[in-house]
Amino acid sequence: MSKKWVFLFEEVNEVEKERGSWNAVRLLLGGKGANLAKMASLGISVPPGFTISTEACNEYYKVNEKFPEGMWDQTMVALKHIEEKTGKKVGDTVNPLLVSCRSGAAQSMPGMMDTVLNIGLNDVTAQAMIKLTNNERFVYDSYRRLVQGYACIVLGLKDEIFEKPLEEYKKEKNMKFDNELTAEDWKVMTEKFKKIVIDHGKEFPQDPIEQIRLSIHAVFASWNSDRAKVYRKKANIPDDLGTAVNIVTMVFGNMGEKDSGTGVAFTRNPSTGEKALYGEFLFNAQGEDVVAGIRNTDPIVSLETKIPEAYKKFIEESQRLEKYFTEMQDIEFTVERGVLYFLQTRDGKRTARAKVKIAVDLVEEGLITKEKAILRVSPDDVDTLLHPQFNEKSQEEARKSGKLFAKGVAASPGAAVGRIYFEADTCEKKVKEENQDVIMVRTFTKPDDVHGMLVSKGIFTNQGGATSHAAVVARQFGIPCVVGASATIIDQENKTVRVGDILLKEGDWVSVDGTTGEIFACKLETIKPDLTKQVELTKLLSWADEICAKEGMRSGENMPSKGLQVWANADYPADAKRARMFGAKGIGLCRTEHMFLGDRSLILRKFILAKEEKEKQNALAELQALQTKDFEELFVEMTGLPVIVRLIDPPLHEFLPTLTDLIEEVSTLRAKGVEDKDKENLLTNVKEMHESNPMLGLRGVRLSIVKPELVQMQITAVFEGACQAKKRGFEPIPEIMIPLVSHIAELKQIQPELEKVAAEVLKKYELDIKYKFGTMIETPRAALTGGEIAHLAEFFSFGTNDLTQMTFGYSRDDAESGFLMRYLQLGVLPENPFKSIDTDGVGKLIRMCVTEGRTQRPGMDIGICGEHGGEPRSIKFASDVGLTYVSCSPFRIPIARLSACHALLK
Amino acid sequence: MSKKWVFLFEEVNEVEKERGSWNAVRLLLGGKGANLAKMASLGISVPPGFTISTEACNEYYKVNEKFPEGMWDQTMVALKHIEEKTGKKVGDTVNPLLVSCRSGAAQSMPGMMDTVLNIGLNDVTAQAMIKLTNNERFVYDSYRRLVQGYACIVLGLKDEIFEKPLEEYKKEKNMKFDNELTAEDWKVMTEKFKKIVIDHGKEFPQDPIEQIRLSIHAVFASWNSDRAKVYRKKANIPDDLGTAVNIVTMVFGNMGEKDSGTGVAFTRNPSTGEKALYGEFLFNAQGEDVVAGIRNTDPIVSLETKIPEAYKKFIEESQRLEKYFTEMQDIEFTVERGVLYFLQTRDGKRTARAKVKIAVDLVEEGLITKEKAILRVSPDDVDTLLHPQFNEKSQEEARKSGKLFAKGVAASPGAAVGRIYFEADTCEKKVKEENQDVIMVRTFTKPDDVHGMLVSKGIFTNQGGATSHAAVVARQFGIPCVVGASATIIDQENKTVRVGDILLKEGDWVSVDGTTGEIFACKLETIKPDLTKQVELTKLLSWADEICAKEGMRSGENMPSKGLQVWANADYPADAKRARMFGAKGIGLCRTEHMFLGDRSLILRKFILAKEEKEKQNALAELQALQTKDFEELFVEMTGLPVIVRLIDPPLHEFLPTLTDLIEEVSTLRAKGVEDKDKENLLTNVKEMHESNPMLGLRGVRLSIVKPELVQMQITAVFEGACQAKKRGFEPIPEIMIPLVSHIAELKQIQPELEKVAAEVLKKYELDIKYKFGTMIETPRAALTGGEIAHLAEFFSFGTNDLTQMTFGYSRDDAESGFLMRYLQLGVLPENPFKSIDTDGVGKLIRMCVTEGRTQRPGMDIGICGEHGGEPRSIKFASDVGLTYVSCSPFRIPIARLSACHALLK
Repeated sequence: MSKKWVFLFEEVNEVEKERGSWNAVRLLLGGKGANLAKMASLGISVPPGFTISTEACNEYYKVNEKFPEGMWDQTMVALKHIEEKTGKKVGDTVNPLLVSCRSGAAQSMPGMMDTVLNIGLNDVTAQAMIKLTNNERFVYDSYRRLVQGYACIVLGLKDEIFEKPLEEYKKEKNMKFDNELTAEDWKVMTEKFKKIVIDHGKEFPQDPIEQIRLSIHAVFASWNSDRAKVYRKKANIPDDLGTAVNIVTMVFGNMGEKDSGTGVAFTRNPSTGEKALYGEFLFNAQGEDVVAGIRNTDPIVSLETKIPEAYKKFIEESQRLEKYFTEMQDIEFTVERGVLYFLQTRDGKRTARAKVKIAVDLVEEGLITKEKAILRVSPDDVDTLLHPQFNEKSQEEARKSGKLFAKGVAASPGAAVGRIYFEADTCEKKVKEENQDVIMVRTFTKPDDVHGMLVSKGIFTNQGGATSHAAVVARQFGIPCVVGASATIIDQENKTVRVGDILLKEGDWVSVDGTTGEIFACKLETIKPDLTKQVELTKLLSWADEICAKEGMRSGENMPSKGLQVWANADYPADAKRARMFGAKGIGLCRTEHMFLGDRSLILRKFILAKEEKEKQNALAELQALQTKDFEELFVEMTGLPVIVRLIDPPLHEFLPTLTDLIEEVSTLRAKGVEDKDKENLLTNVKEMHESNPMLGLRGVRLSIVKPELVQMQITAVFEGACQAKKRGFEPIPEIMIPLVSHIAELKQIQPELEKVAAEVLKKYELDIKYKFGTMIETPRAALTGGEIAHLAEFFSFGTNDLTQMTFGYSRDDAESGFLMRYLQLGVLPENPFKSIDTDGVGKLIRMCVTEGRTQRPGMDIGICGEHGGEPRSIKFASDVGLTYVSCSPFRIPIARLSACHALLK
Repeated sequence: MSKKWVFLFEEVNEVEKERGSWNAVRLLLGGKGANLAKMASLGISVPPGFTISTEACNEYYKVNEKFPEGMWDQTMVALKHIEEKTGKKVGDTVNPLLVSCRSGAAQSMPGMMDTVLNIGLNDVTAQAMIKLTNNERFVYDSYRRLVQGYACIVLGLKDEIFEKPLEEYKKEKNMKFDNELTAEDWKVMTEKFKKIVIDHGKEFPQDPIEQIRLSIHAVFASWNSDRAKVYRKKANIPDDLGTAVNIVTMVFGNMGEKDSGTGVAFTRNPSTGEKALYGEFLFNAQGEDVVAGIRNTDPIVSLETKIPEAYKKFIEESQRLEKYFTEMQDIEFTVERGVLYFLQTRDGKRTARAKVKIAVDLVEEGLITKEKAILRVSPDDVDTLLHPQFNEKSQEEARKSGKLFAKGVAASPGAAVGRIYFEADTCEKKVKEENQDVIMVRTFTKPDDVHGMLVSKGIFTNQGGATSHAAVVARQFGIPCVVGASATIIDQENKTVRVGDILLKEGDWVSVDGTTGEIFACKLETIKPDLTKQVELTKLLSWADEICAKEGMRSGENMPSKGLQVWANADYPADAKRARMFGAKGIGLCRTEHMFLGDRSLILRKFILAKEEKEKQNALAELQALQTKDFEELFVEMTGLPVIVRLIDPPLHEFLPTLTDLIEEVSTLRAKGVEDKDKENLLTNVKEMHESNPMLGLRGVRLSIVKPELVQMQITAVFEGACQAKKRGFEPIPEIMIPLVSHIAELKQIQPELEKVAAEVLKKYELDIKYKFGTMIETPRAALTGGEIAHLAEFFSFGTNDLTQMTFGYSRDDAESGFLMRYLQLGVLPENPFKSIDTDGVGKLIRMCVTEGRTQRPGMDIGICGEHGGEPRSIKFASDVGLTYVSCSPFRIPIARLSACHALLK
């Protein structure tokens, strides 16, 4: 006996039992077929039909595009079954059976594969249908559709060879829309269409069985069309899924104005998620007419009065379907002379907002578990909800009208509109003094620019990648940002930015889309979601936290005792407040150098350039007073939660002007005979501090060892601040993090010295505050020697940006707008390792380090504070490796909380 | 019974048997005691004596600087034994026994510890000695020496309180040398010295036993003197070795002009290694007088006629000693009234040259094995033999007279004298046109400078470390070089270099010592060893190769089938020839970019700046013709041996002017209103290509992927060259190495493409040439994923410079003259990881990679081609890990060959 390839709708429960799961049924019968069959088995009115399985499709390709053995016979048997069920017969001259032949893969590939309608019509059955329906116009319209569809899909002719003559005919007859054509017109067109097929050397078969056979072939073939293959590659759908073929009895919504019609409906509002039927109905029409927008549709409620019984039934059945599938359904249906038929049901697409609301509502309606609800919302959905966006329509128009100025790396999502300015000071001034909306434009940004960035609505840069300074800071503060827009030519001097012929000057309006990486040379309309009102999101995330804390209770070697927590990268009290509001369980990274920005950079500059010890000490004292206050407020905001303070990390020359700018300036002065001693002196200093590869240079712990006075001041400030907070009744939990360690020897050199300073401050205040000293793991060597480093370090935090940089040997600043972009274009690398953690290489280091670190110091806290801390796949990795927390920018906390829970549930 | 602390010389063979090895005896009795005792046991004439063990010394410190229990009693018994043997008696009024009390540790610490001579003299025994010797002058001279020595060593008084009165006395008496003093004079001085002791509140004991007791205390105490501790720390001698104390009967070479005297002799020439007795003799003198140079000594052969029996015996016995110790001996001896006494024998210090010759000679004399000979020569010795050096005396004088201009990193050993020039072109011109000796001075060097470097005698730079471009190139070509001389202020524009007040101008003479890192502002005398005449070195190294090939036959998992080979880093045919002469078994690294220097850089520049495809193709064709010829000659030179050709590695901007220079130039032109379109255009290009961290930027395989045409040209040239060589009857073995791979995907992208090019060339010539494609492992990620990478790569070569750089996150260019230098000063790191491989971190990666690589591809060739390839400890590591070869610059090959053998033997 040959294998079973063909399944009647009625057989679905049996199949489900046999295959063991609904998912297996969907894999076998495709989404459309499985759902049609399920509806039938639930007693819902579905036109009789059957499904040829995806296995048949795969076998078809295995045996050189022939029907697998037994398939055609089984098809004929199934067809006979339909004939019996409907009392109609294929090719019958009195009561002919018409069917559709529809593709349907397990995963939805909208518009990618083919469907042939009205199969069974020929010159003879058309006459029978006219007699039966008494509607000549309907029959010829259907017939010409079959000829046209068959010709295009089965015979491979082009649609325009039919559409063009039709258009010409309408013009000739002075008609505009298809519904103006009469029965006679369609009859003429049918003949014309048949002739066109012959003229193109093809044949439209009059034999309905032949029509069916060749349509099945065509649907199978459509699985391997170029467009389908491309789509699958992009959507990550395996090529060996195959498509099923559904043969379904035709029903007709175009059998009259009063009691026939066709509709689509969602069981909830797909835009808002509101629990209310949402759909459209078109009287006297066939399925695709609704979508095609040929006439204005009626709201679905209009059925209530016009065909009340069908409406009532539809309401009941659609609710049953939603309950059965425990998900909002997207339903296609037809009413044929008052009889309701369901043609399709599937989980409905919806906006992020609706997704969250529906998931939460379904939990509260008792239909699904919290876990299921959480899994139905993706991190991208949360991302979308957190940032303002452009009105899609106006954005599309701008694209079409040539307003798209440049594209770069989408570095920080969201939409921003403002006037461009080229310098941080100017940006600040324009905002503070003139209350302008500002977009900052820079070749790249430096810490010196941060005061300008913070007040800007958006940022774009010519250089840098997704983890460049601009990108990191922008994400940190939720400022929409596009970096590495390399087509732009920025003239800082003349304050212009140019792409081709378009020249923008200071003060010109642009719109920056940090979600798509686009920059528009115009003002676009934005939509700003109100975060505080996202009640459902808040609820969903609190469930995620609960599950993480509960499900996360894992035991086993080197596993932490709690699930993955989400901490925040936050440098200022305001940041910390926001982080806490967004649900952070601690600060995983407070970058103390960010406290040296704005006016304070001048004090730091004094320290750097000081020639005498006294000058140096004065500068330090000034900085200490400021930092102490910063820390005090930070500890107040984070009372009861750990705050990891990272000692100064960047090279000091970042706080001075850039070498090339200075050389340009000084050379110009010199050539003009102007002597500027300060500038010359500054140049000498900057030259002296210049490094070939600053990323691998004098920064982090190296700086601490070479210039210990700076970090000693910082430690004093941290503990002074903590003591002040404690005296005010708060509970500070300071944890000191030493950056860029490569060798335990570096910690040995500096840590005891700093611990001494801390102890002295606490002694002075006679206060007992718990604290820790730990280190970042950001060089491969640190990761390789984690066991050794854990002798001194009480916690680890992976700085995955630097770690990725050094493990790959890719300078993130250069690579992301350079060869790495090319790699991604060429498909050399499947993804940007600065975006999602490279689990094979960098991940291997992390795993080694976690194992060895926890062997030395069981249960130690280990986290990630690089940019990856807010990226879902990296969070999954962090969870799998058994980290204690991920730390990310406050705005990414909701995404991270969801991802952390996903990591546990998946 | 108390422990045995005191050992008679006669007991030595028993001790050796009991302790199991000669080394254990030396540890117990110290070098001097053990050798004296061994001589005695061999029947060689040694004054009777005994040794108090080093264990006694250690116990002495354990029990708070008291003699350990039983030690003093044992000493008295041993003394009695000597008395019996000599027939003399301590303190005897007729025939008194005089002894010396000498320190002697297991490891020689010359001049660090104390010795007291003539113990046993007092007012009474002096008279007895006068009667016995009939030589009053000798006795009073000896007595005053005892008083003086005892006072200084035991009582802690200062030498000058005795020397000053002696000088005054001589002045008063109008005498110049000590030997002018009469018996009466010495009598007066003896009394004076005794009075000085009392005047300083101390006491010279008349009791000889008390003299012995306190002298032993003093010798023990000298073990822990400050200077001894400092010396031990520097020489890496453990503090718990302790010193032995030797009590030896005094013999006197100052008992007459004819038949008494004292001498020192080496059994071979310590300077040249020649097999001939080499020494001096001083008639009528005591030991230290020879060294003190009080009178001119006679050559040792003068003994032959004057005291023929003693001479004959000395010749016989000294040869016996050399044979017994199988090593050149350094002997002290005394002839007392015609009787020869050996006072000391030890392995003699010698020059590197002598060391090699003696080791080889001893093998050929059948005294030692080849292995032993090899182990007796250190890599530093070989290094010394390979480079010209300054005359030490003139160098020391220059230091003293303030001619030392600056110090930097000793980057490439050897001595160079020449006139300074600041630009590569000028250097080349001065050499080629004016035949000058040139020292190149640069802030740092770039590939563009190489033509100038190659013609220079020496190089010094202001920036960079031991693996900077300047250092690497210099070592490669054996050019003495000092880098990172950061105290220098180089003014390229005015062509001056300044340190403090010393200003050197173009054309001034300097001397560069690449071995010490010193730069002198003067001409120093140099000594140039003739390499081709180093017959013994050549022989020794051939033995090393033999042993490596034989002893290296190791089996076991992931071990190569042969011992560690030494290959060369060589870029040109002349290089290859030299490498082969020095014993290279292949070329491990041919840096093809070095073929783009000089005039050719202009062609490459055309390629880089080309705007049209045709320009680009023309430049490529020009380069290809040149490279093909280069490769052909390289394969000819290396016929039958593998040549690993690395595809272009550095970023292309290295072939253009530096950004800062250009900005300075263009800004100046602009300020002066001069429009230079070419320069402006060049600046735009250079700006575009600028990278923040070029070390982590667009280079290596990344460049190959982004600009495949360049490496395709290179592959064509390699295989065209190989085919040409093959046609001429040579046997080319090309191996292509792809640099800077981080991810197998990069190899997947480029390697098949290049293999295709290679196959096409071979097909064109219809030749069958074996070749391989492999990769450098220089990023941590490559090392971490070695198993994966070995799927495609047929061999690995660790680029340990970059690997160290990225594993530590230390930019070598910045670190070595910056914080890393500070780390080494502070002792944070014990050594520079760019110099000697970091076995814990970088080594861990290498081990992982070797294991995983060879698991995937058993027996694959794996080598090191970084700078570490020529460093002995790194070579040891490479051997231990089971690498196939190390590749180093031709001039380091001899060192590496020796080290590779040491690695196996140690």
